[in-house]
Amino acid sequence: MDAKDQSDPAIETHGGTWRFPAETALRLDSGASLSPLEIGYNTYGALNAAKSNAILVCHALTGDQYAASTHPVTGKPGWWNKVIGPGLPLDPDRYFIIATNVVGGCMGSTGPASIDPATGKVYGLSFPVITIADMVRAQAMLIEAMGIPSLLAVVGGSMGGMQVLQWAADYPEKLFSAVCIGAAARHSAQNIAFHEVGRQAIMADPDWRGGAYDAAGVRPDKGLAVARMAAHITYLSEEALQRKFGRELQRDGLSWGFDADFQVESYLRHQGQSFVDRFDANAYLYITRALDYFDLAAQHGGVLAQAFQRARAVRFCVLSFSSDWLYSTAESRDIVRALNAAGCRASFVEIETDKGHDAFFLDEPELDRTLRGFFNSTAQARGI
Amino acid sequence: MDAKDQSDPAIETHGGTWRFPAETALRLDSGASLSPLEIGYNTYGALNAAKSNAILVCHALTGDQYAASTHPVTGKPGWWNKVIGPGLPLDPDRYFIIATNVVGGCMGSTGPASIDPATGKVYGLSFPVITIADMVRAQAMLIEAMGIPSLLAVVGGSMGGMQVLQWAADYPEKLFSAVCIGAAARHSAQNIAFHEVGRQAIMADPDWRGGAYDAAGVRPDKGLAVARMAAHITYLSEEALQRKFGRELQRDGLSWGFDADFQVESYLRHQGQSFVDRFDANAYLYITRALDYFDLAAQHGGVLAQAFQRARAVRFCVLSFSSDWLYSTAESRDIVRALNAAGCRASFVEIETDKGHDAFFLDEPELDRTLRGFFNSTAQARGI
Repeated sequence: MDAKDQSDPAIETHGGTWRFPAETALRLDSGASLSPLEIGYNTYGALNAAKSNAILVCHALTGDQYAASTHPVTGKPGWWNKVIGPGLPLDPDRYFIIATNVVGGCMGSTGPASIDPATGKVYGLSFPVITIADMVRAQAMLIEAMGIPSLLAVVGGSMGGMQVLQWAADYPEKLFSAVCIGAAARHSAQNIAFHEVGRQAIMADPDWRGGAYDAAGVRPDKGLAVARMAAHITYLSEEALQRKFGRELQRDGLSWGFDADFQVESYLRHQGQSFVDRFDANAYLYITRALDYFDLAAQHGGVLAQAFQRARAVRFCVLSFSSDWLYSTAESRDIVRALNAAGCRASFVEIETDKGHDAFFLDEPELDRTLRGFFNSTAQARGI
Repeated sequence: MDAKDQSDPAIETHGGTWRFPAETALRLDSGASLSPLEIGYNTYGALNAAKSNAILVCHALTGDQYAASTHPVTGKPGWWNKVIGPGLPLDPDRYFIIATNVVGGCMGSTGPASIDPATGKVYGLSFPVITIADMVRAQAMLIEAMGIPSLLAVVGGSMGGMQVLQWAADYPEKLFSAVCIGAAARHSAQNIAFHEVGRQAIMADPDWRGGAYDAAGVRPDKGLAVARMAAHITYLSEEALQRKFGRELQRDGLSWGFDADFQVESYLRHQGQSFVDRFDANAYLYITRALDYFDLAAQHGGVLAQAFQRARAVRFCVLSFSSDWLYSTAESRDIVRALNAAGCRASFVEIETDKGHDAFFLDEPELDRTLRGFFNSTAQARGI
């Protein structure tokens, strides 16, 4: 189950697909279960003898396990190559770093594009609806299967941060620390609204075929591209869009038509078109649904602090970005307040940046410093 | 050209379609011209003997001339029935109120769904791209044809506010006052981005047929509905969405599927579906394009104050809403700064509300008070 991939000369990657035996099903919040379960993953660095240096990296909505290695479809560097690597905050020389593809995803983990063993055909919409807690349960199964008793840290941004919170609620005994970046403890009405626009765009595409596009040999690329475009606007701040593009034109003068006159139009179209090459439309539906269903307080009697009652020994770090309007600083503060109310140890940093939500994987010196400091002190506290 | 419509018992409406003779073409910024030109309009109240009490109401992106009368398609009250009516800030007993459908629209004015006289067929994408200045030029033609030498006021919110600014720049000698509500002097990168998502959603619908859907007997309703859903999110503040819907469910419990579980999803779907009954997809493309092209400073050597150099005698009122993130208070302040720099008389009010951009036609007491006071003092200053 281990394939060596050295496509990025800087970082040695081990990874592949972890196949659980058929009897080890993944129990889902919906009441359904998934079997056989497969988890796509990559690891960087080596597990130490004490098995105390493992860090789990959780990805965002459209991320994957290629956190620090070349993406097999796009050929682009890993999405967190500013954070994971020699000399970076997550240094493979010091830590054993594990990145997995979430259940419901489309890069190797069991998802709606997988084969349903009951029919021998692609699941499509017969795939069960999954939750953030289901994603985390699958990760916990993998960590256990890898023989790791507890994680030095679980870390992630955006949906990755929600997984971090869920880890702290469900498996605090397996966590030494938790780093939640640019996330929220629940999806707001506006968050749900943007996701619903994306889902409707996909479902409006006749090539979606009620989710059964695979059997028809087509793909709802146009709808998925529109969904990505709408979502992408929420990942950038207004200031960042204005600074990057403003009203700059593609060519001299206006076209007086519907070509992409403005650079921001061309950029968005490119974001949409390149996304469909690497992502599955049904996976987009399922993962956005998991996000919309996420409400950690609701899982604990409506009181967020209750979610963290068992996590008092976990060292928390909560980070937000000042210009993030998808998951704002106010939402991170809500998390910190709940952690404080639960008696947890939490440090909180709002990073001043105009880059918006996507700042968590962009070149952001204060993020680098904060992560470096936190992981360093955490590792020292655990004697690494 | 005048049809009486008393469907709303409270307000007497006169209106219909104003048909300009073929030789009176509308010259367009693109270099093209439109002929014959038709303008859909409604009026409320009567022009006084001095012809000094006329107020032009400019509508927003999806508005129309049914500002204070029952909409013929939806059967709903006029979109500005909180502002126009007996005892309201724009009282037909005192003012002669004119509301027109913009050129490029789909409620009676010449637009992409009109018949192209050159071919005898619906224009579709052969309709020329129009601008805010073109809309205003057509309105000025109508005002002149009605025998009104100058307007007591021109007033509008959102795109209506942009028309107000364009009026002040192009026809200051025909204006006594100008009221610009929740608008901006130019479309930002984020504004353009949201519109581009909507256009791509329409164009992705196979029933759009490259704009020639009329000839094919189909309509790109699904794409247009998605466009409306995406845009509608920008009309409401995050707080308003949270207050109205939060995470409230449609039914008891989650569906564990892709039905509208959350009330906000159901609301958005309804917004999309009801919109397609009253709006033309190509008109949506053309009007969003006009908005994206709008940049009043660029029309005047890059200096916004230059646009208002000839408007020193016009009394301006600029209004913004604190929670409007589509056209923010900062953008209204830019307008006020330019008016000040040009030596114009401008009052500015930021209305505290959590209702977002759409506050301009919702029940908003401070808006009512401000408009009432401004129109009253303006009318008194003109001896009405």
